Amino acid sequence: MTAEFVPYMNQVLDQIEQPNLQEAMRYSLLAGGKRLRPRLFLAVLASFNHSLEAGLPVASAIEFVHTYSLIHDDLPAMDNDDLRRGKPTSHKQFGEAMAILAGDALLTDAFALVATSDYPDTVRAQMTAALSVGAGSHGMVAGQVRDMLGEHQQLSLPALTQLHQEKTGALLQAAMKMGLAAVDASERDKRALARFAGAFGLGFQIKDDILDATATTAELGKTANKDQAEAKNTFVRLLGLDGAKEALALQVTAADQVLHEVSRPVPELNLILDYLK
Amino acid sequence: MTAEFVPYMNQVLDQIEQPNLQEAMRYSLLAGGKRLRPRLFLAVLASFNHSLEAGLPVASAIEFVHTYSLIHDDLPAMDNDDLRRGKPTSHKQFGEAMAILAGDALLTDAFALVATSDYPDTVRAQMTAALSVGAGSHGMVAGQVRDMLGEHQQLSLPALTQLHQEKTGALLQAAMKMGLAAVDASERDKRALARFAGAFGLGFQIKDDILDATATTAELGKTANKDQAEAKNTFVRLLGLDGAKEALALQVTAADQVLHEVSRPVPELNLILDYLK
Repeated sequence: MTAEFVPYMNQVLDQIEQPNLQEAMRYSLLAGGKRLRPRLFLAVLASFNHSLEAGLPVASAIEFVHTYSLIHDDLPAMDNDDLRRGKPTSHKQFGEAMAILAGDALLTDAFALVATSDYPDTVRAQMTAALSVGAGSHGMVAGQVRDMLGEHQQLSLPALTQLHQEKTGALLQAAMKMGLAAVDASERDKRALARFAGAFGLGFQIKDDILDATATTAELGKTANKDQAEAKNTFVRLLGLDGAKEALALQVTAADQVLHEVSRPVPELNLILDYLK
Repeated sequence: MTAEFVPYMNQVLDQIEQPNLQEAMRYSLLAGGKRLRPRLFLAVLASFNHSLEAGLPVASAIEFVHTYSLIHDDLPAMDNDDLRRGKPTSHKQFGEAMAILAGDALLTDAFALVATSDYPDTVRAQMTAALSVGAGSHGMVAGQVRDMLGEHQQLSLPALTQLHQEKTGALLQAAMKMGLAAVDASERDKRALARFAGAFGLGFQIKDDILDATATTAELGKTANKDQAEAKNTFVRLLGLDGAKEALALQVTAADQVLHEVSRPVPELNLILDYLK
């Protein structure tokens, strides 16, 4: 499904005139990763028999926003990470100023990709709203702020859940909403799929916490066990490893169940859910 | 014209749930400044007898984007400025991480303001495209990168002009385009007003360079004479003070002239041009 996705992003990057900026944006965008957020968007298109090709600019926009958030997260003033997707982080590779600017450009350009895509005007306006609300002060950035302020203090389970609904869940929800804006889904299907995105998002973060505690740096492509070292609030810290695995299983079951409520088979979404299993 | 503008931005900020983020965003947004970019947008609406009230979300969006760019510019890794609009810069006041995140949120929320404004879908899509293209890797961020890379080397006049067309001019042009997207202007008027924005943007940057070289820190509200101290590329450095004043006068004359080509009186735009005189 994501076969045409990387060449498309490359084409977009090729048009950037300033070579250093182009290079820094490409470095992080094409470093790999699971690309779950654009895949979620494309899976909705596929499920409702919509053109994936028409969706490429928007799928790219979602990956642009996710990638910007990783670059800024990794900055010395934030998580101060040296390694991401098995490579030096952007500021390690290009310096801090360029990393800030590459992130800024990815975030800004994402909206140009949506605004100039071939969807009808109404759909583009809905997609822009979903993306900006999910990524901004009511979503991802708010979650980042809560994460930063919550360091070195123990959050309650509801507070940790809210933090992750904003930090990780909101952009996944936005990807789902953007897919639903493009297709003709019934209200019932829309509600089920929004619930799927919610359960998937929370499960995704629990899985991330489990991996941080159990996998090696080589397996992760980023520094392992960093959460514990920095006394970060994680589901593993709060629930223990077994408790976190149970919480993950609950979200997977919930997500599985809502997929069965959708009025048509959604094999692409089942595939995405497999990542959590 | 900008009377309702600050209360409107305050309303938008009031809705942000995370209090620290809300505070940091408000601190920079409401620190004052000339607000030339949103005023340019509103001046176009006024000139074509359009509702200024309908334009408030979009005017705010433009100021959000400008303010984010100032916060990120001032960061230690970038210009490392302590003072902005007569107050400590965002990272001095709230720390670097919060300054980065407040900037990210302002940039992201700007697109939500445009996408959820009351303009027709087509107009909102055009405005989103203009804002993102002007602010992103083909505009403002590219100019920032060129500015950073050009430090400590002498740029030619064409290279310096390109840098400023991107760094300052592109967002002013975007504000103009966003205004023109809302109103019914003839092609001839649109061309004239786009030329006005170009001349105004360049003149604005030349004026900024002249002020940096001649005004005091108290007058500027930011550290004076910083360009020279850091061997920044400026019009004053390249043309001398008298040469820069001549170049400014040329742009003012050009901007004045195109305003006379517009098919109707545009007193609000004349007022904005007065800032350069």
